[in-house]
Amino acid sequence: MRIPLRSCCIFRSFISQKQTLDTQRRGLSGAAMRLVQFRCRGDGDDVRVGVEQGQGLNVVDLKAFDSSMPSTVRELLQLGDKGLECAQRALASGKFVVERANIQLLSPILAPEKVVCVGMNYRDHCLEQNAPIPEEPIIFSKFPSAITGPYDHIILPTESQEVDWEVELAFVIGRRGKHIKESDALSHVAGFAVANDVSARDWQFKRNGKQWLLSKTFDSFCPLGPALVTIDAVKDPHNLGIRCLVNGDTVQSSNTSQMIFKTAELIAWVSKFVTLTPGDVFLTGTPPGVGVFRNPPVFLKRGDTVECQIDQIGSIINKVV
Amino acid sequence: MRIPLRSCCIFRSFISQKQTLDTQRRGLSGAAMRLVQFRCRGDGDDVRVGVEQGQGLNVVDLKAFDSSMPSTVRELLQLGDKGLECAQRALASGKFVVERANIQLLSPILAPEKVVCVGMNYRDHCLEQNAPIPEEPIIFSKFPSAITGPYDHIILPTESQEVDWEVELAFVIGRRGKHIKESDALSHVAGFAVANDVSARDWQFKRNGKQWLLSKTFDSFCPLGPALVTIDAVKDPHNLGIRCLVNGDTVQSSNTSQMIFKTAELIAWVSKFVTLTPGDVFLTGTPPGVGVFRNPPVFLKRGDTVECQIDQIGSIINKVV
Repeated sequence: MRIPLRSCCIFRSFISQKQTLDTQRRGLSGAAMRLVQFRCRGDGDDVRVGVEQGQGLNVVDLKAFDSSMPSTVRELLQLGDKGLECAQRALASGKFVVERANIQLLSPILAPEKVVCVGMNYRDHCLEQNAPIPEEPIIFSKFPSAITGPYDHIILPTESQEVDWEVELAFVIGRRGKHIKESDALSHVAGFAVANDVSARDWQFKRNGKQWLLSKTFDSFCPLGPALVTIDAVKDPHNLGIRCLVNGDTVQSSNTSQMIFKTAELIAWVSKFVTLTPGDVFLTGTPPGVGVFRNPPVFLKRGDTVECQIDQIGSIINKVV
Repeated sequence: MRIPLRSCCIFRSFISQKQTLDTQRRGLSGAAMRLVQFRCRGDGDDVRVGVEQGQGLNVVDLKAFDSSMPSTVRELLQLGDKGLECAQRALASGKFVVERANIQLLSPILAPEKVVCVGMNYRDHCLEQNAPIPEEPIIFSKFPSAITGPYDHIILPTESQEVDWEVELAFVIGRRGKHIKESDALSHVAGFAVANDVSARDWQFKRNGKQWLLSKTFDSFCPLGPALVTIDAVKDPHNLGIRCLVNGDTVQSSNTSQMIFKTAELIAWVSKFVTLTPGDVFLTGTPPGVGVFRNPPVFLKRGDTVECQIDQIGSIINKVV
């Protein structure tokens, strides 16, 4: 089966080989990759899986490289090693490269079975609100419909007057499991991404019987991306600078070393309750500096731009509309 | 494309026509149907969509009738009227009938995008716990991984000592929408089912920062079925007897007329926050008689059998293991 050459997608076969090798030297090793989902501009709703040739660089179109490969990262993860190995070969081929200018980057995961969120998981964030350090993780969720792309708009709902930012390290499950041991947990992680756990504080603290779900799950309240950075591409996920900027001003700046329950502990904990499955997204909590705890409180308004950054992973930039 | 005749599936073409007509006269009118998902015994993991010839009777195999039809009810609903019309034609054909004895009935919806739950939504349940009648719906969620079949086991987790029953009327979204008006809401409903909102009370009331998610979402904590009874097949969903029996003893017995926020109100409310999509499942709250508010409290133990019944819709029976 042959994939038709799409007008918007420029496949560069030979000229990109040198660039790919350079990119690999810049940090890709083993299964180290930056997986993305994208649409070619002018190509309708057709979602494709890509592998970045480096942070913010052009992407290799996986399905153009091998037409038997799936169209979503979730399905790719469901293939296990076979899928990731094919993505590595695609990247190494240096072929089927799509120019960055011709793509719209989507969230690297769409329609996961679960978006698992952790509350009060940064020591410095607990201190900020004079709250005790939790003895167990506090788990809540968003509906998958809240996920939006790394450069898409955050839609301010008329139902809330107190919409706030929360930069968070996200990780994505790559291998199914239940009752996963902490010592084995990292083998279930596909990789990491940057998330914004956008939160309507009025709904979180005063409405809905204090169940957090509604406050966290308005459509567009989970910007995610820019890539799913595979676990081999991140040196130490618990020693990364993490920042949020609103209209260019730094409002959150901390380090993932402040996390109380780290990746492996969270997987072991949550998998006591539920079977984890490839594509499940975890948002691991936010550092201090959110708007609601400022004096006076500050909330997002139309026209604001929110940028969430994590070292080695990248940045997502979302305008509030 | 032809569907291979499966050894376990007995397709009866002519002899069942009279039975089908009788069944239609017994209550099916317009798009009134009982949609199910099933596996043929001995046929591996292959999920199929069926239409019951009447409550508890044999089922017509939709994909055998029309091979272009999907294998899940969620995908069928995504087709809109085209899918339901095909299911009606399949039922009317009286062909491709699979004997009840040869099937394992699954939940009529698997892997929805959302399982939306409503707390404190029966007047008599609020009175039972001396709680005020809520002025707004209280919305929480389960992960889709909690869904299990109408006759599957409820798995008692070692993590909880206080697992409780909650019979609930479930409804399923058939048409996508956001900011749906109450007056238009019922046109977004595909149909109804019986659910058990199994709840670990220790985790609900004492752990996880009082966020209900974990208490409600252990694997197997959402038995659902036996069929998705389309909205035209239910005379008045808010005037149905609703009961739960544990080991044959009636522990809950009320009427869906006690619901505070009814189907249309819940759709209008939740769609202020999120886009609803075909297959989304709502659990609409439970009447009085749950174990935790008994004196002394009663919880489920291994070997118990829980039966949840709703008039016109059917019953689900789950053994606790």
